[in-house]
Amino acid sequence: MNMYKKSSVIISMLCIGLTAMSQTGKSNAVKHHVVMEITSNDTLTWKGLMNNIDHIKETWGDSVLVEVVAHGPGIDILAKAKTTQQKRIAGFKQMGVLFEACNNSMKAKKLAPGDIVPEAGIVPSGVGEVILKQEQGWSYLKSGF
Amino acid sequence: MNMYKKSSVIISMLCIGLTAMSQTGKSNAVKHHVVMEITSNDTLTWKGLMNNIDHIKETWGDSVLVEVVAHGPGIDILAKAKTTQQKRIAGFKQMGVLFEACNNSMKAKKLAPGDIVPEAGIVPSGVGEVILKQEQGWSYLKSGF
Amino acid sequence: MNMYKKSSVIISMLCIGLTAMSQTGKSNAVKHHVVMEITSNDTLTWKGLMNNIDHIKETWGDSVLVEVVAHGPGIDILAKAKTTQQKRIAGFKQMGVLFEACNNSMKAKKLAPGDIVPEAGIVPSGVGEVILKQEQGWSYLKSGF
Repeated sequence: MNMYKKSSVIISMLCIGLTAMSQTGKSNAVKHHVVMEITSNDTLTWKGLMNNIDHIKETWGDSVLVEVVAHGPGIDILAKAKTTQQKRIAGFKQMGVLFEACNNSMKAKKLAPGDIVPEAGIVPSGVGEVILKQEQGWSYLKSGF
Repeated sequence: MNMYKKSSVIISMLCIGLTAMSQTGKSNAVKHHVVMEITSNDTLTWKGLMNNIDHIKETWGDSVLVEVVAHGPGIDILAKAKTTQQKRIAGFKQMGVLFEACNNSMKAKKLAPGDIVPEAGIVPSGVGEVILKQEQGWSYLKSGF
Repeated sequence: MNMYKKSSVIISMLCIGLTAMSQTGKSNAVKHHVVMEITSNDTLTWKGLMNNIDHIKETWGDSVLVEVVAHGPGIDILAKAKTTQQKRIAGFKQMGVLFEACNNSMKAKKLAPGDIVPEAGIVPSGVGEVILKQEQGWSYLKSGF
């Protein structure tokens, strides 16, 4: 049954792909998609995450789309009162990196949207977002040591 | 050669998919598949895992199939004498969540099948199970912070 | 747009696959591909990684290709002066397991190629390597607890 689901997705993608090719005649500039999950509130782990984004962007520039999903104790990296990384987050946002805060984690920590850094969006479920991105073919990186 | 393997899989899936569509005419109720790997014996990590399953089931109900694979030090979450989570495991099992204990880890810790919570199955290799599920298109979540 | 990229990849794979089938008439011996990411410098985590490789090779022998990518603090597992695992690394290398050191991490730690165990190759970016392998359909395992 999973096979059925997957083959339906693939057939749809083939159709969309063939249509897209006939319409544009060229390939898309974004060649790599990565979802990075951060669940730790350890500031060294946050620094490691930022270094990893640095290296990904150095390697692939605008041909990679990176989304960082923060949830659980990791929500703090996107909380104004807790983050040690706002400057780097702002810089990466300028370069097209996406940051998403988990609404479930925000509720658990009584964080309002105004308590989150302005560079970040909010997703209903952090863990759900990581799953959805993988379903869409994104590579997955779990942060931490 | 990897390309060859993948294309064979895709061709098979297309054939199975087309057959399935002609037979059933509708899609499967399970739309999301997630394998969650737990290798930690830290009870806070276990609690975080349970919270994540909660949020996944809240979001997708019966349209998601979740399998938890416990191995290494994480085997303890499924050991009667060690787990702090049997009540939640039992509740999730009722909701269709699968729990699998790694037989390699059980042998290393001298755990017999009777030492494992009754809600869990046993797989020959925890790490092998996580690999197989990803090969079948399941999303992967590594537990821990 | 991601859909477009994926469908192009799939169309290419179908063409290559059909060509390969007509040429070889049989499938490849390597059926499983796994990339294992190690970012920790904790020796217990290293031991757990080695145990996992053991179990994977026990299960699948030559039908699995394993690549270990070490970066961040995890680079030390491949540093002659730091590793506690050179004997097991050498044994796994004999069995076809690949070990790759991240050049970015080597530069950050002022490690020259001669400071790395001879069993390991060097990749420009460890995190990039893990992404590329997933794009090629490899299963992903994040090491650690």
